[in-house]
Amino acid sequence: MTDQTLWQSIAGTLRAEIAGGVRGTGDRLPTEAQLSARFGVNRHTVRRALAALAEEGLVHARRGAGVFVAPARAEYPIGARVRFRQSMEAAGRVPGKRILASESRPASEGEARVLRLSPGETVHVTDGIALADGAPMALFHAVYPLGRLPGLPKALAEHGSVTRALMACGVPDYVRVSTRISAVLASPVEAGHLKVAPGAPLLLSEAVNATPEGVPVELGFTRFAGERIALTLDHS
Amino acid sequence: MTDQTLWQSIAGTLRAEIAGGVRGTGDRLPTEAQLSARFGVNRHTVRRALAALAEEGLVHARRGAGVFVAPARAEYPIGARVRFRQSMEAAGRVPGKRILASESRPASEGEARVLRLSPGETVHVTDGIALADGAPMALFHAVYPLGRLPGLPKALAEHGSVTRALMACGVPDYVRVSTRISAVLASPVEAGHLKVAPGAPLLLSEAVNATPEGVPVELGFTRFAGERIALTLDHS
Repeated sequence: MTDQTLWQSIAGTLRAEIAGGVRGTGDRLPTEAQLSARFGVNRHTVRRALAALAEEGLVHARRGAGVFVAPARAEYPIGARVRFRQSMEAAGRVPGKRILASESRPASEGEARVLRLSPGETVHVTDGIALADGAPMALFHAVYPLGRLPGLPKALAEHGSVTRALMACGVPDYVRVSTRISAVLASPVEAGHLKVAPGAPLLLSEAVNATPEGVPVELGFTRFAGERIALTLDHS
Repeated sequence: MTDQTLWQSIAGTLRAEIAGGVRGTGDRLPTEAQLSARFGVNRHTVRRALAALAEEGLVHARRGAGVFVAPARAEYPIGARVRFRQSMEAAGRVPGKRILASESRPASEGEARVLRLSPGETVHVTDGIALADGAPMALFHAVYPLGRLPGLPKALAEHGSVTRALMACGVPDYVRVSTRISAVLASPVEAGHLKVAPGAPLLLSEAVNATPEGVPVELGFTRFAGERIALTLDHS
């Protein structure tokens, strides 16, 4: 085997042990010396395999303490209808939300263009944290066209769920129009909210939701904690 | 305005100037002192706005030299048919590829499961760098079921394009079955290949392609340089 195949094969074995439940969340992996002995390779090769697993978010190294199995990433399906609460519930997790700020103000130029508003029309903006089982999964910044959704601020406060609040405002259904996904690093403030290290990797999603007739009802910027959640796309 | 609204508003103005072409790729932004004076705010607020733009990848700070407008991210559509070369060409960029390693070997347990192979069947694996206009956009690790694609190693070497190589192996069309996207940090080796800083944010895509009849032909792990490329999903 080449060096590359070797560490990949070791990473694959450890990955399978984690996926198969042989090693559970929070378990400490054997030391580098123990893994070297088990696989009959040098420590450099073991280190490369562990680094690969760490990059995938399967394990975390804690300085001086060892390498531990990380909690599995939540999977969040991005498709024709994207619903955080329903997806988390379907995955057996308890969804939650904490609002950090909300206000109504004139739309910026970019917001007006995407939401198809006239310049200066009012948008309602909410910033908050989306939770699963109490753990912060994402920071969201959502922009709503207030003129199309009278009563939205009150409905959001009452219902918690965006889907239900929109329903209360006369939007019984909404569909995802477009999603743009990039990777960014957590700023210190974002890291504090998301309980990750500053500089941790985030998935930034810029998305537009509209009524089935194509009238935009939400422009959302969401920063997902890369180590806790993965976006899944089903193309079938 | 609250402090938060203030820096967001400044970030929004600068974002619009970049998007509108008032500030082009490589232009240096005014200094913090100049921006403070222009917007009538303190430097802390300017710094927060610049940090937000940097996180989005719109600007880069160069130590001692200032803050510069970054090249726009390439957009890579992820849909029913995902074709790197065609997408880059459609965006007016010249696609390229550099192979780092390739080998044929028995499938790992996970690979066999996803590709629906019997244990021990042979896969062909290629590692390489996908380029646009000569700049590294992604590191790919692609796993092909060799038994279903006789002659693939030779076809890949001859054609460069995966689409054409598969065509030469009797697969005239293939579709994306599933995609899983997470965010990870670049390891030093990955950073070297991608010409980004170690610890830069990467989009990790784990994807399966199959024939229109559903027979898997490729399992791909792709690490995109987060600062150079964004994935776009069209749900219509």
